[in-house]
Amino acid sequence: MSSLFQRVTKPIAQSPGTIQFAGKRHVDHVGIQIIDYDRDQVDIRHVTDVAECFGYRDTPTVTWINVDGVHDEQVIRVLGERFGVHPLALEDVANTHQRPKLEDYDDHLFVVCRMLRAEPGTTRVLSEQLSLVLGRGFLLSFQERPGDVFDPVRERLQRPQGRLRNGGADYLTYVLLDAVIDHYFVVAETFGEAIEDLETLVLTDTAKDPLNTLHGLKRELVQLRRAVSPLRDVLTGMGRNESPLVDSSTSTFLRDAHDHAVQVNDTVESFRDMLTSLQDLAMANMSNRMNDVMKVLTVFASIFVPLTFVAGVYGMNFEHMPELGWRWAYPAFWGVILAMTSAMLAYFRRKKWF
Amino acid sequence: MSSLFQRVTKPIAQSPGTIQFAGKRHVDHVGIQIIDYDRDQVDIRHVTDVAECFGYRDTPTVTWINVDGVHDEQVIRVLGERFGVHPLALEDVANTHQRPKLEDYDDHLFVVCRMLRAEPGTTRVLSEQLSLVLGRGFLLSFQERPGDVFDPVRERLQRPQGRLRNGGADYLTYVLLDAVIDHYFVVAETFGEAIEDLETLVLTDTAKDPLNTLHGLKRELVQLRRAVSPLRDVLTGMGRNESPLVDSSTSTFLRDAHDHAVQVNDTVESFRDMLTSLQDLAMANMSNRMNDVMKVLTVFASIFVPLTFVAGVYGMNFEHMPELGWRWAYPAFWGVILAMTSAMLAYFRRKKWF
Amino acid sequence: MSSLFQRVTKPIAQSPGTIQFAGKRHVDHVGIQIIDYDRDQVDIRHVTDVAECFGYRDTPTVTWINVDGVHDEQVIRVLGERFGVHPLALEDVANTHQRPKLEDYDDHLFVVCRMLRAEPGTTRVLSEQLSLVLGRGFLLSFQERPGDVFDPVRERLQRPQGRLRNGGADYLTYVLLDAVIDHYFVVAETFGEAIEDLETLVLTDTAKDPLNTLHGLKRELVQLRRAVSPLRDVLTGMGRNESPLVDSSTSTFLRDAHDHAVQVNDTVESFRDMLTSLQDLAMANMSNRMNDVMKVLTVFASIFVPLTFVAGVYGMNFEHMPELGWRWAYPAFWGVILAMTSAMLAYFRRKKWF
Amino acid sequence: MSSLFQRVTKPIAQSPGTIQFAGKRHVDHVGIQIIDYDRDQVDIRHVTDVAECFGYRDTPTVTWINVDGVHDEQVIRVLGERFGVHPLALEDVANTHQRPKLEDYDDHLFVVCRMLRAEPGTTRVLSEQLSLVLGRGFLLSFQERPGDVFDPVRERLQRPQGRLRNGGADYLTYVLLDAVIDHYFVVAETFGEAIEDLETLVLTDTAKDPLNTLHGLKRELVQLRRAVSPLRDVLTGMGRNESPLVDSSTSTFLRDAHDHAVQVNDTVESFRDMLTSLQDLAMANMSNRMNDVMKVLTVFASIFVPLTFVAGVYGMNFEHMPELGWRWAYPAFWGVILAMTSAMLAYFRRKKWF
Amino acid sequence: MSSLFQRVTKPIAQSPGTIQFAGKRHVDHVGIQIIDYDRDQVDIRHVTDVAECFGYRDTPTVTWINVDGVHDEQVIRVLGERFGVHPLALEDVANTHQRPKLEDYDDHLFVVCRMLRAEPGTTRVLSEQLSLVLGRGFLLSFQERPGDVFDPVRERLQRPQGRLRNGGADYLTYVLLDAVIDHYFVVAETFGEAIEDLETLVLTDTAKDPLNTLHGLKRELVQLRRAVSPLRDVLTGMGRNESPLVDSSTSTFLRDAHDHAVQVNDTVESFRDMLTSLQDLAMANMSNRMNDVMKVLTVFASIFVPLTFVAGVYGMNFEHMPELGWRWAYPAFWGVILAMTSAMLAYFRRKKWF
Repeated sequence: MSSLFQRVTKPIAQSPGTIQFAGKRHVDHVGIQIIDYDRDQVDIRHVTDVAECFGYRDTPTVTWINVDGVHDEQVIRVLGERFGVHPLALEDVANTHQRPKLEDYDDHLFVVCRMLRAEPGTTRVLSEQLSLVLGRGFLLSFQERPGDVFDPVRERLQRPQGRLRNGGADYLTYVLLDAVIDHYFVVAETFGEAIEDLETLVLTDTAKDPLNTLHGLKRELVQLRRAVSPLRDVLTGMGRNESPLVDSSTSTFLRDAHDHAVQVNDTVESFRDMLTSLQDLAMANMSNRMNDVMKVLTVFASIFVPLTFVAGVYGMNFEHMPELGWRWAYPAFWGVILAMTSAMLAYFRRKKWF
Repeated sequence: MSSLFQRVTKPIAQSPGTIQFAGKRHVDHVGIQIIDYDRDQVDIRHVTDVAECFGYRDTPTVTWINVDGVHDEQVIRVLGERFGVHPLALEDVANTHQRPKLEDYDDHLFVVCRMLRAEPGTTRVLSEQLSLVLGRGFLLSFQERPGDVFDPVRERLQRPQGRLRNGGADYLTYVLLDAVIDHYFVVAETFGEAIEDLETLVLTDTAKDPLNTLHGLKRELVQLRRAVSPLRDVLTGMGRNESPLVDSSTSTFLRDAHDHAVQVNDTVESFRDMLTSLQDLAMANMSNRMNDVMKVLTVFASIFVPLTFVAGVYGMNFEHMPELGWRWAYPAFWGVILAMTSAMLAYFRRKKWF
Repeated sequence: MSSLFQRVTKPIAQSPGTIQFAGKRHVDHVGIQIIDYDRDQVDIRHVTDVAECFGYRDTPTVTWINVDGVHDEQVIRVLGERFGVHPLALEDVANTHQRPKLEDYDDHLFVVCRMLRAEPGTTRVLSEQLSLVLGRGFLLSFQERPGDVFDPVRERLQRPQGRLRNGGADYLTYVLLDAVIDHYFVVAETFGEAIEDLETLVLTDTAKDPLNTLHGLKRELVQLRRAVSPLRDVLTGMGRNESPLVDSSTSTFLRDAHDHAVQVNDTVESFRDMLTSLQDLAMANMSNRMNDVMKVLTVFASIFVPLTFVAGVYGMNFEHMPELGWRWAYPAFWGVILAMTSAMLAYFRRKKWF
Repeated sequence: MSSLFQRVTKPIAQSPGTIQFAGKRHVDHVGIQIIDYDRDQVDIRHVTDVAECFGYRDTPTVTWINVDGVHDEQVIRVLGERFGVHPLALEDVANTHQRPKLEDYDDHLFVVCRMLRAEPGTTRVLSEQLSLVLGRGFLLSFQERPGDVFDPVRERLQRPQGRLRNGGADYLTYVLLDAVIDHYFVVAETFGEAIEDLETLVLTDTAKDPLNTLHGLKRELVQLRRAVSPLRDVLTGMGRNESPLVDSSTSTFLRDAHDHAVQVNDTVESFRDMLTSLQDLAMANMSNRMNDVMKVLTVFASIFVPLTFVAGVYGMNFEHMPELGWRWAYPAFWGVILAMTSAMLAYFRRKKWF
Repeated sequence: MSSLFQRVTKPIAQSPGTIQFAGKRHVDHVGIQIIDYDRDQVDIRHVTDVAECFGYRDTPTVTWINVDGVHDEQVIRVLGERFGVHPLALEDVANTHQRPKLEDYDDHLFVVCRMLRAEPGTTRVLSEQLSLVLGRGFLLSFQERPGDVFDPVRERLQRPQGRLRNGGADYLTYVLLDAVIDHYFVVAETFGEAIEDLETLVLTDTAKDPLNTLHGLKRELVQLRRAVSPLRDVLTGMGRNESPLVDSSTSTFLRDAHDHAVQVNDTVESFRDMLTSLQDLAMANMSNRMNDVMKVLTVFASIFVPLTFVAGVYGMNFEHMPELGWRWAYPAFWGVILAMTSAMLAYFRRKKWF
């Protein structure tokens, strides 16, 4: 079960800008990938020594340095200092419980968002913090573990004619954020299917413990909403075209990404409505079942308790009970019993109890 | 049942502006209708080759090119490129799960909205994406399938004196959006009738599974709200009179259309309130029925269980039970039974249980 | 029961500005009343021919032309064209399902609101669309049927010293809107009384079907809110003192009217809270009653079922049952029965079940 | 029980500025107190003739004229006209159902708020309209009845060194409003205590009709919120330092008063949350009690109904029932009975039913 | 249990700026700690006489004067006057029920917030008012009792190279607020754990009185929200860089602290959602249990009541009952009983009742 809150493992009240890993460690070794490209060439390298990145800072090409694993504070500090990243940003990179946000440090933009992937076959959402530092001619990205949603982007970087190869680091940032949002749609789809499956069960009243399932879905939905909802403001902020780091042509694309984020958010909100409605339905099913149980009890009791009384009457040992000696008393008794039963059944039938 | 979410059939993280159909295919062949008009003449043509549209781009007349079917990416791409439409807009045309929105690409406006039609005799809403590209002297419209709500508009285009023939492409855009909103009223009316029908049943407690029906209505209402609610912002944006493509005289009409959209939205909101109230009522009915069942059980059990005990007493086989030998014991027994029953009935009557 | 939605009887997608009656027809003949006044004289006329109004357009006096009945499109069109009213405004006059709104057509203001009157002795609200066109020196008012809330205004118009006679058409507009809002208070009072009556019944648990009553009240409240809530914006807009048609001294009065509308709106909102609270109370009463029924059943069953068992034991026909032959067995049996009953009663008493 | 709505006893659609008392009359005679002070002297007088106030209008000293009782329209009119108060303000003084508001009539400010006092020993709130007219060098205050929360203010006015004696009429206005808000805290405290008392009862499930009590508290809370919530805007408006009647040094104090109003409002909102939570708790208690009742019934019925059947079997009169003649049949019967009972009790114990 | 409201022990309507302790007294003696530092040296002193602070006002070094205990009005007054603190700020220092707020008195900023600490092993939150006065070169802090969350800050003040020693009083203010917010995370974590513990119990339906526990958590959550929510505005206000007392470099840090406050607030909001969902779940469990009880009752009653009737029939004393004399009547009776029981059990099994 995904956690509701961030476990604060970092010491309290540390000096701000203290880079200290706070999260769950997913990898042993930090992996660094450098993709350096411009219109004419693209160069992809995997390095283990962070120092190999330093030369790319002031080249005219666009450099994307992707770091998998944020538990090694040393790597983050060295890389950050070399590329002039604000200490507060580096602190947030290492603390993997950030709310999606955009911070403008004049000569670089810092973006935090959550990269979501649906775990296949479940409604569980794998969530990972993605931190992006967009500077002049470079983009640093930090992920919690290897494996991401960016493989199609890396492929597109190989195609010389694409807009990507001709765009700047700001466009690359947009492309990464767009890929992240595209995966939100996949996650939302998985959710939608889970909700529709549950809906079918609840509508036919064949769900087992629907409230527990609903609770689990709501819990995951809270996660999803907390990832998606603040991202809208991040994209609005970037698209507002105030930082010189973001080109006005990229702003158009960022507004488009913003529209997509709004769309996911709307979908998530309608999921909430749907879950509430399903819950009401499940509750009503429960009441209906209770009603059914009560009707069975009432029908049985109301028919047989009077009959038992009649049988009890003629089981009495009074000396003077004329009926006991009558010739057709016993068949008559059965006649009375049948008449009473029929009357009761007709009564309940009229009440539509069965 | 209409789907809760957009199924993302497109590959993830594609280059933005990649036109790839994502939706349900409704037609085999794309149909193109060209209506070219000015004050003096109107010319209506159906073409199959998209190239026949190209000549209309720079004419002084107003040209409305309507495309039925958006699954053929080639048609969209060729048409879009020729008329200078932004790639992101073309991408959204082909992806039929857009949220209603307005995008201003300086030399053309891009509008997405949902065209709703009530399926006759049901509360189901047929929903289709309508994409409009308003350029200088032309309007491109893309629909998912043939058949739309624009026949009255086409008729009015035949009348030479109408404002439509004398207006520009911006006025035509308004007229189409107005026709779309007019149909929202029809859909809302169908909904209103379904709600009032259900209300009658619930008020007389004759509804069968009212919660299921309510759930279905809420589901469709979510659809309706998601179509109507963002359209208000679209119309506000267009009517704000900032784009040179929209004449200030048309702005007045757009504000009027905005008022209508607000009105539909208000209606939809009051439907929500009404459904919530009906649900409470249906729940209360359920509780009431349960109460009734319990009362029947309690009345029967409370009357006959004591009587059975009395009968049981005189069925005992003690040797020394003086009553058994009394002459009028048996009639007295019946007297006691009658008295007890009357007392119980009076008690329950006083409690207003029947 | 008042309708939840506007029935769209007008053809769809008509040319905007097409004046076509859409509503319920309340009168046979359109009645027109002309009140022409200035500081020195007042002239009241009833006319049937709309042409008699034409002369009043450009007089220096203030002219109030009131039209009862909006089903005659011809009257509206002729009058509107003569007084230079925008076609969209005329369309809204005839379509009596408008949301309250203010539209500024530069040389005239168009105001739509709803005139509410409480139907005596019920909580039903009679609702009627009132359309006002405020031009330079004239005010056109359109109502759905004869009879309105303006008789005190007509009376005040007779008094030469009043501010009304000395004010312009804008002040007259304020006075009419103020009269409309004053009646909202009356309607709200009727509602408040109905809610307090219901409250008394629910608090003493003597209400019959309180949920049905609550549903009816909520339904009417939705109507009331939809009339009052948008009127606040209308009055804010008029009082903002932007149109040259509204004098700044009148703005002060419009702000006062706005405060009153806010007050009604607050009252309506607190009615909602109250109805929700009453509903919870009614639901709790239902549960309490159920509890009471169950307690009666449980007390009866728990006392007599064991007793019946004891009686059954001594009705058995075993040959070897020593108790049967004992001399004081039967009295002892009654002793046991009494003891058991007393114990049970004490137990239930301690549980506070009766 | 305090009333939910304002009873409109005034005639409808009167000329605005018509001063007509609308409210409940609390006093027979209007009492007027004049406090005239400056740095050097303070003069307190009680007068009955309103004309005695006239001389104070244009003195350099600060004059506070307090009127107890607003049913005498003549007093209000004369006083108002003499001090140049706007007719709409005078109308609102006499109509004691105003929403708290601030109106800026250029040469005087008009403030309406509600003066609340907790009725000792109850949660009932005594509510009274306080109208303040702040002019240049004078402050008129109108209350519905004698007795107010201003005695400490009058005392402070006696002290020559206090800021009050050195401040202007604007500072006096602040001091009065601050005294009013201080009493909101007292009322809120009374409420808080009532809620905590109820909480204790509900948590121990010893409350009698908690829903009725909750409903009463909610009702009063609506009153309280309607008094407090709009006052925030009033104080923001006054503190915004736009009117020349309010000194900038007083603005600081008004912002402080605003903070206090926000604090009361927050408290009231958290009371709402608390009441909702208590209601859920009370409902759950109800369900728990129902569960308990049902368990008792079920335990009794499930144990004794089978036993009765067994006893019934051996009460049958078949000629050929071998058990009847067995020597130890009767003791064996009791053994079976005991075994069955023990089994059932163990079963229910395992289910944790008692 | 923490209190819902502020107990107003101060006299009502006192002169504003009257410093009067209103709260719970936590210490006997006021403790004052002076930390005076600049880049080169740091000097820490504990004093008891407030006069010893006076010399630090106009030094070029940064002086942090921390006061533990605010019940001694004399200390607050003397210190406040000497450092030029506004009387309203001093009043709020002594009244420990303030809502978090920021007040800009031009030459000093006044900040109130709540310092929260989780009481170990419980979900109870220890809450204490922290008042900060930031002036030119000094910071006064007032706490209700000794012991705070600032020990790491004091340690960092010893390190000469730290940013803290090189920063101004504004940076020190940020560091203190950041330490306060860091503790909010700890409190939130404690809450999250309590909620997850409860969740486990509720999901397995083993919680005892879950509604009572939920109510307690909600109560504390209200406290937490009231501390966190307004703090966001405080930090936004300080970071807006309008006061000359806050350096622009510190603004960046304050924005970071604001982001953290938003994050805590989001967490608190998601706790609310989670508690609501848990409550629904707990209610559903209750209903389920009721259903189970009813099923047991119904199964028992429905099986044995008919059987008892059959036994009763053959216990009748009619003279002419042919079955009584049959040879295999008794075994046949048992056969019938077994058949009936099996049929009933099969019926209930099919209904999935057990």
